[in-house]
Amino acid sequence: MQIGRILGNVVATRKDERLTGYKLMIIQCLDEQKNPQGCPIIAVDTVGAGIGELVLFTKGTSARFAANKTQSPIDAAIIGIIDNIDVYKELPCKEQQ
Amino acid sequence: MQIGRILGNVVATRKDERLTGYKLMIIQCLDEQKNPQGCPIIAVDTVGAGIGELVLFTKGTSARFAANKTQSPIDAAIIGIIDNIDVYKELPCKEQQ
Amino acid sequence: MQIGRILGNVVATRKDERLTGYKLMIIQCLDEQKNPQGCPIIAVDTVGAGIGELVLFTKGTSARFAANKTQSPIDAAIIGIIDNIDVYKELPCKEQQ
Amino acid sequence: MQIGRILGNVVATRKDERLTGYKLMIIQCLDEQKNPQGCPIIAVDTVGAGIGELVLFTKGTSARFAANKTQSPIDAAIIGIIDNIDVYKELPCKEQQ
Amino acid sequence: MQIGRILGNVVATRKDERLTGYKLMIIQCLDEQKNPQGCPIIAVDTVGAGIGELVLFTKGTSARFAANKTQSPIDAAIIGIIDNIDVYKELPCKEQQ
Repeated sequence: MQIGRILGNVVATRKDERLTGYKLMIIQCLDEQKNPQGCPIIAVDTVGAGIGELVLFTKGTSARFAANKTQSPIDAAIIGIIDNIDVYKELPCKEQQ
Repeated sequence: MQIGRILGNVVATRKDERLTGYKLMIIQCLDEQKNPQGCPIIAVDTVGAGIGELVLFTKGTSARFAANKTQSPIDAAIIGIIDNIDVYKELPCKEQQ
Repeated sequence: MQIGRILGNVVATRKDERLTGYKLMIIQCLDEQKNPQGCPIIAVDTVGAGIGELVLFTKGTSARFAANKTQSPIDAAIIGIIDNIDVYKELPCKEQQ
Repeated sequence: MQIGRILGNVVATRKDERLTGYKLMIIQCLDEQKNPQGCPIIAVDTVGAGIGELVLFTKGTSARFAANKTQSPIDAAIIGIIDNIDVYKELPCKEQQ
Repeated sequence: MQIGRILGNVVATRKDERLTGYKLMIIQCLDEQKNPQGCPIIAVDTVGAGIGELVLFTKGTSARFAANKTQSPIDAAIIGIIDNIDVYKELPCKEQQ
């Protein structure tokens, strides 16, 4: 899974009918410091997340399980709203062993 | 899913027969500001999209569901025509919590 | 799917027996302008493509469908020989809407 | 699979119910020299790993097998605690054949 | 599939039991000129490859087929030992059509 923030949404009138009823959210992937990482993806929302929220999302087959639509064209889904990110090391880890 | 724009198409006479009947579209991936992101991919069109249009596309197993050809070599499909991209924050998000 | 060019092939005497009989082609991924993109991959050939040819290839589960070997270690397959790439915009698209 | 180090964890009260009971670990991917590589991912823990530990993790369908939850939204899982990394060549390999 | 070289191996006493009996090899991905490409991955060995050898490896579901363990957490496997890489063009291809 990955951490992301909802930047907005996409509107598509003409689309695969199996997408009907889902809000298509634009998610910016983030690292553990909440810095943007890579390019945004479009995910269906399965938890009622809102614009600007920090979310947990999943990709691939797991997204279809999240949406309970295993035979759909969905390949990304929001599966949690993040309350807190606990990072015990702020900097990329140095070896300790 | 990802946002993309159709740049053109690919013609292949000699190909896997399960691709017959599909237009093979060249899609440039875009970010939420419609800037190009990464390299183009080739996707089958399942919604009747045209050259230059902004589309929603999907990759992997979800593309075969989109095309209703679950046992085919398809790994990318156009699944929607984007009317509008609503971005509530133009810049990569800063932390607000 | 992606556009690629066949750079050569790999010879492996000791290999998974389900790869026997396939030519293992080295494919350079290309963008729509035929510029190299990312690192080469090794794909089985299912259409009789030759060295130097421009091809369409697929990755993941779709490659096993292409090879009609759904329970094999194949994860990339050549599925078409490209006759022509029609690009209607030579430069990365600017927004038009 | 990949080598990673656990940087911390994510707390999400509102989430897909199939994630309940799993600790959602933040993992920094590492190379064989234990240098950070790419952006962190969130994985469920299946082996009882702790913060700061060097772990082996897997992604995609294999993560659902690891968690013995094949129909869940899980797409990454910790599957081992690494005791030792034996690298016989410290530098990126030069050709020897 | 991809070309790689075995750099070493990882030892994990506490791990998913379905990994027991496999040597967990560290593989550096290579391009067709045998230059390192991207970060190393950990793969199970299915062909008896040794440290320093040039190998063919596969990722995802195909790796579980390679290992004949379709319901395991394995997501990468060595499936061949490369005898020779025949590249007919040493430089990234220029267009010839």
